[in-house]
Amino acid sequence: MTTRLLDIRQGVLSKNDQLAADLRTQFHRAGVLALNFVSSPGTGKTAFIERLMTDLRAKGRTVAALVGDLQTDNDAKRLARSGAPVRQIVTGGNCHLEADMISAHLSDWKLDLSGLDFFIIENVGNLVCPSSYDLGEDVRVVLLSVTEGEDKPLKYPPMFHSADVAVITKMDLAAACEFDRDLARANINEVHPGIRIFETSSKTGQGMGEFIEFLEKCKMQNAKFKN
Amino acid sequence: MTTRLLDIRQGVLSKNDQLAADLRTQFHRAGVLALNFVSSPGTGKTAFIERLMTDLRAKGRTVAALVGDLQTDNDAKRLARSGAPVRQIVTGGNCHLEADMISAHLSDWKLDLSGLDFFIIENVGNLVCPSSYDLGEDVRVVLLSVTEGEDKPLKYPPMFHSADVAVITKMDLAAACEFDRDLARANINEVHPGIRIFETSSKTGQGMGEFIEFLEKCKMQNAKFKN
Repeated sequence: MTTRLLDIRQGVLSKNDQLAADLRTQFHRAGVLALNFVSSPGTGKTAFIERLMTDLRAKGRTVAALVGDLQTDNDAKRLARSGAPVRQIVTGGNCHLEADMISAHLSDWKLDLSGLDFFIIENVGNLVCPSSYDLGEDVRVVLLSVTEGEDKPLKYPPMFHSADVAVITKMDLAAACEFDRDLARANINEVHPGIRIFETSSKTGQGMGEFIEFLEKCKMQNAKFKN
Repeated sequence: MTTRLLDIRQGVLSKNDQLAADLRTQFHRAGVLALNFVSSPGTGKTAFIERLMTDLRAKGRTVAALVGDLQTDNDAKRLARSGAPVRQIVTGGNCHLEADMISAHLSDWKLDLSGLDFFIIENVGNLVCPSSYDLGEDVRVVLLSVTEGEDKPLKYPPMFHSADVAVITKMDLAAACEFDRDLARANINEVHPGIRIFETSSKTGQGMGEFIEFLEKCKMQNAKFKN
């Protein structure tokens, strides 16, 4: 039974990978940079993304977001405060987003991707399962808050290994949590040597400018793919 | 393909449920109260359990723990500081514990369950998948920290619904996080009406005595099952 289960999982993953590759081509042709944000529940993904979208729009950039949760459209409502177009995917029981959910929502939404600079996907809060599912993004961003403990990268290596960049959130709480910055950075680097790490606070704005600069560079590098 | 996958998942779950029922009988006959702790990564499960085990031992109670993580035996090392017997289950890629992992480790460990008052299982940090897997516990404890956001019960209802009791952790950080206690309690109650909620801090010890009193009552109620 284990073998059959593994075979079928493999099948599901290959289908997902194919759909993700199609999505990636679609994003590249439209000239939009697609981002997939992953973390534990409670790391502050939504607060970070709301701040990011607001700051991007203040700079005249266009952005839209697709948000995954097991239940509720709370996060979509929060992100919509930025003024950008936002849609919620309610996954029911599913602990992660898959490429077909992104395709289906994009197709139903009739969003003009070529009118966007950035397309943000906020994954379900889960530090394990979303690591296996490519959503066609160009940049996978893993977030870790100062309140979670510095050892999380060592305990959940696939997520930190599969991410392209890491963001430490809630830096405004670092002192209250006795956060060990050097240890956290060393642990992220142990699992993913050389990965770029941003230290941020959605409350104070720390690190947001630096992160936006990074996104702009990624977008410039991607321009070669455009139609 | 979806149907085949679901059928097989159903099969895996039924097998798990049967194994869990066997474990429950084993725990009941030995007169040990089995607990399954579930939460996001970073909620403070290990800190809470270390404090709990230390406090229980100070009261002359016997306790052992089995700890699940994707990688590392960091948590087992931390819990072992309490002086109690502790074992680590490294799940590899698996995002949750299953009953057969508990059985296999118990059988290999040759732990005398009848010499124990409490047997603690610390699940993999994940607010989604562990909710579907009964481990034979008598009490499933879901933890939520004040830093995670008050809406988590609404966004991850299966975990809060399947738990027997809820513990709010890191109350010492409540002011720094502007934690809305009433809202958090209301959200837990919306998903699981009437569930008992403990407000705790592993740092200051707040609420630990009350939680231990609750465990002692559960243990007394379970005495009827003993050989």
